[in-house]
Amino acid sequence: MRATIFGGPRDITVGDRPDPVIAAPTDAIVRVTLGCVCGSDLWYFRGESPHALGPIGHEFIGIVSEVGSAVGGLSEGDLVVAPFTYSDGICPHCIAGWTSNCASGGSFGNHGIDGGQGEAVRVPFAGTTLVKVPGTGHDDATLRSLLALSDVMCTGHHAAVSAGVKPGDTVAVVGDGAVGLCAMIAAKRLGAARIIALSRNPARQALAREFGVTDLVAERGDDATTAIMDMTDGIGVDAALECVGTNQSMATAFAIARPGSIVGAIGAPHDVQVPIETVIFRNVGLRGGVAPVRRYLPELMEDVLAGRISPGRVFDFETDLDGVLGAYQAMDERRAVKALIRMSNAE
Amino acid sequence: MRATIFGGPRDITVGDRPDPVIAAPTDAIVRVTLGCVCGSDLWYFRGESPHALGPIGHEFIGIVSEVGSAVGGLSEGDLVVAPFTYSDGICPHCIAGWTSNCASGGSFGNHGIDGGQGEAVRVPFAGTTLVKVPGTGHDDATLRSLLALSDVMCTGHHAAVSAGVKPGDTVAVVGDGAVGLCAMIAAKRLGAARIIALSRNPARQALAREFGVTDLVAERGDDATTAIMDMTDGIGVDAALECVGTNQSMATAFAIARPGSIVGAIGAPHDVQVPIETVIFRNVGLRGGVAPVRRYLPELMEDVLAGRISPGRVFDFETDLDGVLGAYQAMDERRAVKALIRMSNAE
Repeated sequence: MRATIFGGPRDITVGDRPDPVIAAPTDAIVRVTLGCVCGSDLWYFRGESPHALGPIGHEFIGIVSEVGSAVGGLSEGDLVVAPFTYSDGICPHCIAGWTSNCASGGSFGNHGIDGGQGEAVRVPFAGTTLVKVPGTGHDDATLRSLLALSDVMCTGHHAAVSAGVKPGDTVAVVGDGAVGLCAMIAAKRLGAARIIALSRNPARQALAREFGVTDLVAERGDDATTAIMDMTDGIGVDAALECVGTNQSMATAFAIARPGSIVGAIGAPHDVQVPIETVIFRNVGLRGGVAPVRRYLPELMEDVLAGRISPGRVFDFETDLDGVLGAYQAMDERRAVKALIRMSNAE
Repeated sequence: MRATIFGGPRDITVGDRPDPVIAAPTDAIVRVTLGCVCGSDLWYFRGESPHALGPIGHEFIGIVSEVGSAVGGLSEGDLVVAPFTYSDGICPHCIAGWTSNCASGGSFGNHGIDGGQGEAVRVPFAGTTLVKVPGTGHDDATLRSLLALSDVMCTGHHAAVSAGVKPGDTVAVVGDGAVGLCAMIAAKRLGAARIIALSRNPARQALAREFGVTDLVAERGDDATTAIMDMTDGIGVDAALECVGTNQSMATAFAIARPGSIVGAIGAPHDVQVPIETVIFRNVGLRGGVAPVRRYLPELMEDVLAGRISPGRVFDFETDLDGVLGAYQAMDERRAVKALIRMSNAE
């Protein structure tokens, strides 16, 4: 099969990889129909985080082409969404709902596991990892939103859930990337009355508005803090969602969070110092992390299929597998929020 | 009146201070009967944290001797517990329950406010700060436990509440100081099934056992982590309570906390680095801070008066006002867990 290969910073090519085969009875093989590039892939692309040489990409949907003898609930031909981490469903962490911390788990496109930016993937623990999409004949907009459930939408949701967003809240989202935009959808979905987005990009601002954002703040750093404290009568927000992963975004999130609230953080951290004095003296908590996508998938899929949320709208760039380098470049140069890779399987 | 005066590191004396008078109609004057020394006072004593020169001490119980014209619910002669921070009860933070972050509040023994280690205190916002103790003729053990509600017991409770301790949980308490011991009481009270205390001091271990601790770990650092991970079958604890405030104790708390759990931290932080990688990659949260004592006081006072909890047992050293330096020294040299100051008013 053909798949995207990470050869080091800036080195993204399409190469040949062995066709995946069932290696354990709990495996399934999925023919990828749609994949995409994650903001975290850019850290590798830019050389700011390490990544094993080889397959890459951890978000995909596709069609089951083969199932191992111990896989329940899945059949050849099923359309499935893959969480970006696979999980055995039976370890203490999975049982507690923390599938992204599965004791036997891992992520796609890493540690010898096929990546989602390729034609096919061997999925370990397929029966407890993949989520079958009910129905048939889904239109392309729905399929794009289903792809978003593989990571970005569930990750934005995790930020909002971690911060304890509840009906009537004032929520601020730091970051207008794809995850930030999905965090806005999630805040709205959880009943936030006021959603403040820190964004200065007109296209992203427009999308944020469509996702339910009520207030836009173009300032950054201390100026953003001042603006938001003014907007909230000096109180701060009920929930701050940190969707970037830099020290400045974390500092801003903590500065605008009201006492007793929680910063929901999901950005892969890069040189982030948690302001412990704010934690202790202002009682601002911190929760979040690698989203337990498998746990969130059923409820969010229901909303996608009912048309209540459309996270697939974050994809504003599309290419085929041969164009994958261009997808990385478009995101790296901020010409695209998030790039979708349509496989030839999709036809 | 006579009161303890902080003159700089190691400089604790008893001196004359003006008798407090009603300065605002919301004030009350309290004659202190019992005060005590806090672990946080030791940071000032040791010169490791700054403190204004002048009165010191923020924990006390006493008898109301005068009330301002706008103070409701209190009368001369009432026995009251003072939370270590005063609060107006009407700002957005107080209304949300975060009385320790009151927009108009502050702590005793700071910023020109009388300290609790003196004969009398002017209490701002007395009607929304002080909590009247029902009944009369309380025995000394009860009074000592009421004093503990002023800070240390409510702070231990805040660690447990912040970490989300629930019935059946396995809880680890990092730190066997007075707050750590109270956190053990709180964990037990909230229904923890297994309570692991990190303690190597025989007297504190014995008290911990009486407070409901089921397992003792004498190791520190990586050895403590290994021991606790072994004890929990590699899973980690459901809640880790960080009751010290050092980098090592925070690191240990994060290392033993299971994915999806929360570190409840209340130690005043000193050179603490929050392990952000653990937050993100293991989904371990962080909550806690300066305890909203006023909010917790009613329910915990009920338990003290019913004899269900006895946090006053953490006081293992007693002196009078003239002996206050000795109280600091006993705690500084770890000869005492927590020192009580019995005022002549107490007779």
